[in-house]
Amino acid sequence: MGKGRAAIGVDIGGTGVKMALVDEKGRPLCRETFATRDHRGRKALLEALAQGIRSLAADGRKRGLSVVGAGVGAPGPIDVERGFAYFFPNIPGWKNAPIRALLEKKTGLPVRVDNDANAMALGELLFGAGRGARSLIALTLGTGIGGGIVLDGKLFHGATYSAAEIGHIILNEEGPRCGCGNRGCIETYVGNGHFVRQVRGRLNAGHKSVLSRWIRQGRELTPLLVARAADRGDRLAVSQWALTAARLGTVLAGLVNVLNPERIVLGGGIALNRRHIFPAVKRVIREKAFPIAARSVRVVPAALGSDAGTVGAAALVFAAFPRSRGADR
Amino acid sequence: MGKGRAAIGVDIGGTGVKMALVDEKGRPLCRETFATRDHRGRKALLEALAQGIRSLAADGRKRGLSVVGAGVGAPGPIDVERGFAYFFPNIPGWKNAPIRALLEKKTGLPVRVDNDANAMALGELLFGAGRGARSLIALTLGTGIGGGIVLDGKLFHGATYSAAEIGHIILNEEGPRCGCGNRGCIETYVGNGHFVRQVRGRLNAGHKSVLSRWIRQGRELTPLLVARAADRGDRLAVSQWALTAARLGTVLAGLVNVLNPERIVLGGGIALNRRHIFPAVKRVIREKAFPIAARSVRVVPAALGSDAGTVGAAALVFAAFPRSRGADR
Repeated sequence: MGKGRAAIGVDIGGTGVKMALVDEKGRPLCRETFATRDHRGRKALLEALAQGIRSLAADGRKRGLSVVGAGVGAPGPIDVERGFAYFFPNIPGWKNAPIRALLEKKTGLPVRVDNDANAMALGELLFGAGRGARSLIALTLGTGIGGGIVLDGKLFHGATYSAAEIGHIILNEEGPRCGCGNRGCIETYVGNGHFVRQVRGRLNAGHKSVLSRWIRQGRELTPLLVARAADRGDRLAVSQWALTAARLGTVLAGLVNVLNPERIVLGGGIALNRRHIFPAVKRVIREKAFPIAARSVRVVPAALGSDAGTVGAAALVFAAFPRSRGADR
Repeated sequence: MGKGRAAIGVDIGGTGVKMALVDEKGRPLCRETFATRDHRGRKALLEALAQGIRSLAADGRKRGLSVVGAGVGAPGPIDVERGFAYFFPNIPGWKNAPIRALLEKKTGLPVRVDNDANAMALGELLFGAGRGARSLIALTLGTGIGGGIVLDGKLFHGATYSAAEIGHIILNEEGPRCGCGNRGCIETYVGNGHFVRQVRGRLNAGHKSVLSRWIRQGRELTPLLVARAADRGDRLAVSQWALTAARLGTVLAGLVNVLNPERIVLGGGIALNRRHIFPAVKRVIREKAFPIAARSVRVVPAALGSDAGTVGAAALVFAAFPRSRGADR
């Protein structure tokens, strides 16, 4: 037995892969990253993943740690039991890939695979803003909206591992068209791309804002830039954030009514602008959800930051192999 | 040991109380009902409930059955663990009532209490349209919309017993005002009262419909009457049902994306008009929910009909005392 246990967390994204050796307290000890496109095709990418896992495992053993296994967070739906990726959006060649079996064979380590948003939710539960909670909803507000749900201390997957697609709850059946084909999904109001398009639309329509000058000066229009404008009291920026927070709050109020969770954890770029999001979201939940459920939920910022993906993926392993059953590998 | 087991199911409604002796297969063997207002005040109503339970229990024993306990389905939020009603909407004097302890003392039987919509969901799971499923969402479409959620074979209550308030998911933040204070809750589109008001509004606005004649002839405008008009191809009636089904479908698609359930069970007055609701709801779910989740869910009519409340309440007892632990009381 070494000084403690560790797991390798792998976060597969559309553009990059992040990997880390993570200790039992959720601390990344050592990181590796590479661009997804550097390894074209499924076979090359899998080999790169396996090599990264083996190298981080060797690193862990050198540190005297017992490496319990590797966890993989992947975009798109995953058959968690079989460790099977139905498909990866943005990564061709992965349809129905038995990723768990392939990686176990190549690395000799137990592997667990889950959707990246689920992994992040579990990471926040074990090591981040969800500690101490038995139930939580975790949302990552980025280009899309990733959602993970923990119920009764465990990730909730649904009947066919397809639960927690929170970004596509419909907020307004007559709202803007979403990439999924529907109208008015919450993603169309709160996703980065739509957020920026809405601001640009209002600027183009002639609304006055410091943002126009900043854009002319060559700065890129991002949610962060809009937050900086809102910090200065820019009316367009303030109202855009207020609208975004109100809409997010409305959807969360609905989820609070349905799931009555202890905690809601918000992460990702949009949520980084805490003072433009959290107070308003909390107020809307108090206004729109049922009192008992609204009073019992805490809305908190995600705590794992840019390590959320890898730490969450490692959490899949720690959850699958709790301390008492820790094997020395 | 008798010929089998039975439980007493009690369904407390705003206007009436229904009670039944229910056997282990979910069959009501004997029913009792009384008007809630016949027993004014909490004490008198409790005494009437206890007396009904005792009398049905005696009936069960005469039949040679082992009476396991009494289940109570009550409107409003319930602390299930303590058997405690926070309050009953429409029934004054019940704030923070320890209904389980009081009834156990008065009847000598184990008592289980839950929200009426949860009880109905459990009843459908054990004895009705949910048999064989491990997860389901059950909706009762009446004056309001009651919701119950079963996950992993068990009723899902949330952190503070306040989950499954599905009627107040917001479908359109700019929609009609709901009794709960918000705008555009699904209840404002699908609840009986709003349904009838919408039709009346369109008739008053001069839309032609056979309903105008029927109302002049003294028939009451109900969802059922609108269904009869739709059966004849009346345009206003057909479009009203289509709109109602589409909106219900939109909300259910969102729930399918979040909960990925095996089954959705729809009951209550609105759902009785099966051909105006089920095909359209299924189509909207297929259109709007994610394919894996949409394909794996079955949308079915509730099977327990007017006994849903009492059989569901009895199911609370059978679920709490499974066969192997069956006590002979």
